Amino acid sequence: MTPEALSALSARFGEQLSTAPAVLDAHGRDESGLEHTRPHAVLFALSENDVVDALRLSAAHAFPVIPYAAGSSLEGQLIPVRGGLSLDLSRMNAVLDVQPGSFQATVQPGVTYPELNRRLRPHGLFFPVDPGAEASLGGMASTNASGTGAVRYGTMRDQVLQLRVVLPGGRVIQAGSRARKTSAGYDLRHLFIGAEGTLGVITELTVKLWPLPSHLVALRCPFETVEAAAACAVAVMTAALQPERLELLDAEGLRAVNRFEGTAYPEQPTLWIELASASAAGLDETLALCRELCLDAGALEVAAARSPAERAELWQARHHAYYALKALYPGHSSLSTDLCVPLHHLPQIIAFARAAIDEAGLQASLLGHVGDGNFHVLFHAEPDDTATWNRIQAVYDTMTALALALGGTCSGEHGVGLHKRRFLPLEHGDALDVMRGLKALLDPDGLLNPGKILPD
Amino acid sequence: MTPEALSALSARFGEQLSTAPAVLDAHGRDESGLEHTRPHAVLFALSENDVVDALRLSAAHAFPVIPYAAGSSLEGQLIPVRGGLSLDLSRMNAVLDVQPGSFQATVQPGVTYPELNRRLRPHGLFFPVDPGAEASLGGMASTNASGTGAVRYGTMRDQVLQLRVVLPGGRVIQAGSRARKTSAGYDLRHLFIGAEGTLGVITELTVKLWPLPSHLVALRCPFETVEAAAACAVAVMTAALQPERLELLDAEGLRAVNRFEGTAYPEQPTLWIELASASAAGLDETLALCRELCLDAGALEVAAARSPAERAELWQARHHAYYALKALYPGHSSLSTDLCVPLHHLPQIIAFARAAIDEAGLQASLLGHVGDGNFHVLFHAEPDDTATWNRIQAVYDTMTALALALGGTCSGEHGVGLHKRRFLPLEHGDALDVMRGLKALLDPDGLLNPGKILPD
Repeated sequence: MTPEALSALSARFGEQLSTAPAVLDAHGRDESGLEHTRPHAVLFALSENDVVDALRLSAAHAFPVIPYAAGSSLEGQLIPVRGGLSLDLSRMNAVLDVQPGSFQATVQPGVTYPELNRRLRPHGLFFPVDPGAEASLGGMASTNASGTGAVRYGTMRDQVLQLRVVLPGGRVIQAGSRARKTSAGYDLRHLFIGAEGTLGVITELTVKLWPLPSHLVALRCPFETVEAAAACAVAVMTAALQPERLELLDAEGLRAVNRFEGTAYPEQPTLWIELASASAAGLDETLALCRELCLDAGALEVAAARSPAERAELWQARHHAYYALKALYPGHSSLSTDLCVPLHHLPQIIAFARAAIDEAGLQASLLGHVGDGNFHVLFHAEPDDTATWNRIQAVYDTMTALALALGGTCSGEHGVGLHKRRFLPLEHGDALDVMRGLKALLDPDGLLNPGKILPD
Repeated sequence: MTPEALSALSARFGEQLSTAPAVLDAHGRDESGLEHTRPHAVLFALSENDVVDALRLSAAHAFPVIPYAAGSSLEGQLIPVRGGLSLDLSRMNAVLDVQPGSFQATVQPGVTYPELNRRLRPHGLFFPVDPGAEASLGGMASTNASGTGAVRYGTMRDQVLQLRVVLPGGRVIQAGSRARKTSAGYDLRHLFIGAEGTLGVITELTVKLWPLPSHLVALRCPFETVEAAAACAVAVMTAALQPERLELLDAEGLRAVNRFEGTAYPEQPTLWIELASASAAGLDETLALCRELCLDAGALEVAAARSPAERAELWQARHHAYYALKALYPGHSSLSTDLCVPLHHLPQIIAFARAAIDEAGLQASLLGHVGDGNFHVLFHAEPDDTATWNRIQAVYDTMTALALALGGTCSGEHGVGLHKRRFLPLEHGDALDVMRGLKALLDPDGLLNPGKILPD
């Protein structure tokens, strides 16, 4: 960034602009563990108008702009690889409007999903996308985030009705409609969802809300093998039990949790299933059906919990798995895959992954949102252990090739960022040229979050 | 189309190409009643390769191509306003693959949704988008069609996992993934859904399937006023009863049905509600709650039906309304609006529409998918009665302006076609320029279905 650009930003934004080293450091990393790079400056935007002016100055002075909010991305999406301005939207965190009668809320991009849910509880409503961390709605839209609720409610893509977006150069558009459905012209909304801040900066979102389920039960079922657990997940889906959540953690994950939490869960591949019904009687029927199905599929036990406190306890091991696994290998770096395949192929690719990991002698654990066909392999190695990292990359590549051959995708929910760009030619073929065309159309100077999604 | 273009088409396609007057006539109209225009020729495509070669010849000879399948569009989308080649995909009607374990099917674009559902029944699955007529999946994707199932299952936009698309010039891309979710790059799939064949020609679709509900009950509830019926629809949604369908027909509609079918339904504004549950006990509870809610909201009766035959009979009046209303005014032309608003505004706009229609002394009936906030006003007038058509347009314009002011859309499900293009500047503002940019990016010579969606 030129001194002229910095002084123009400073003149316009005063103390909202920071070049303090600690602030630059904090905006140079995300949760991926990828190499940090500082931005030249950080702007704490307070309004859409701030965003407009930042993008005008970016166009005038040709500096990159990287949208930032909670800092919880997992693929380096927030890292300013070419420097520039980190545009921090975390202070644009107002819930602007809640319309219970239309099941929708309008929020600024810095609102986190736990905060939105706190605001919705008095209405008996909730927002079902829960990617973990304290992710912001703007960031979640930008990576098309999902989480444990996607199996029942879908991803961010399914929740966003309308966006306000500032385009490179500072033009503001509105995409989508507050109506539940529209067929009025090209769907611009979905261009920006999952675009990781490379096509525009989201300044407002209207999202769908859902009624809180009235009756819930959570189940925990350990299995002898991870393949058996995956096959049971497919059976639960095929039986049309329509679970609220359907999660998997392998034996290694349970060991990590027991060590981290001092618990004594069976250290075996485990499924968590949450079932809902509008009526208590309906829930009893669904639970009985599901229990029988799990036992038939080889579940060693079916632990069930109904009260909120008991459900929270039953879920604990799954919810804490990611950090427990990281804690199991102090001083190691970790790398998470994010493959997603058509559901009926899930047992096959999970068996393949487990075998490939073991054959390569790697330390890795399997967890995932298996009702969606989405699972993560979390690899661990010491940062400088190049030989091991090469073996990890080789296993990652073969797993990805299989997922794509089965009709799947290299990313179910984390996005592309820096690291997965190399998979895109194989996944998209000629469609990648169309993606490049879209980027050139909306950001002809390549100033918005450069170096992300599209391979160089 | 030049003689050279015609002979090149003829040389490549032989008897698949037709210039027979009856064939040209049949491909010059849809169900909109808008002015017919013949194409120069019709190509009956049998394969993706045929589509590729047609678009290559279109690029080489600069003639327009208009994708066509069932001919059931309602906004003139199929009318070849600048002549050219009508590309008939109705013979590409194979169901290529059904994967019950992944809840997905892959079909060619000419498959109709009733045919797909016949093929799915043995699997206990169904495809929930039901726009009426014998619409084709390719056409339904191209208008983002919906129908009575959208209130529970969403629109075409929510069902399509992956598309194969031939772009202008003949390049083939694949958009989306067969995985249930993906965050791997820009979402090209949604560019083509709702694009009305102006950006590419869909040659294959992979769509989501759903389990057939196990227990169903249908309700029919007449009300004193259409506003009361609309308010009850909002109450049913707000109570989180999650109906499978939620439909409205006004008193005029009931009169038309009684005359058309020889039935004796109460000639009053009527709601139809369909409720589902995974268990018989659950359904009893939901039905009791819904019945009480409807009576509280002013329902004059709540007729309920459980068996498939009884449910079909109960639904009859709603399903036949469109054709009954047309039959009520022989020799008249009709025009249907397609507004959709955030649900809590529905009673307001329905009251406004009813008052505006009555004040202008027009013949019109109100019907719609009110659980989505989507309703149609079907106007009737003699084709040459210019004074009446001017009054209709004036009412249509004020209704649309109100819908947009309430955050709604000019089209909930029919698409834009020819007639609604004039509403797009008001609905989309500057976003319309981005839409024009997308069209120029993908179809720089403007050869694919010219004259549709974008205002001149």
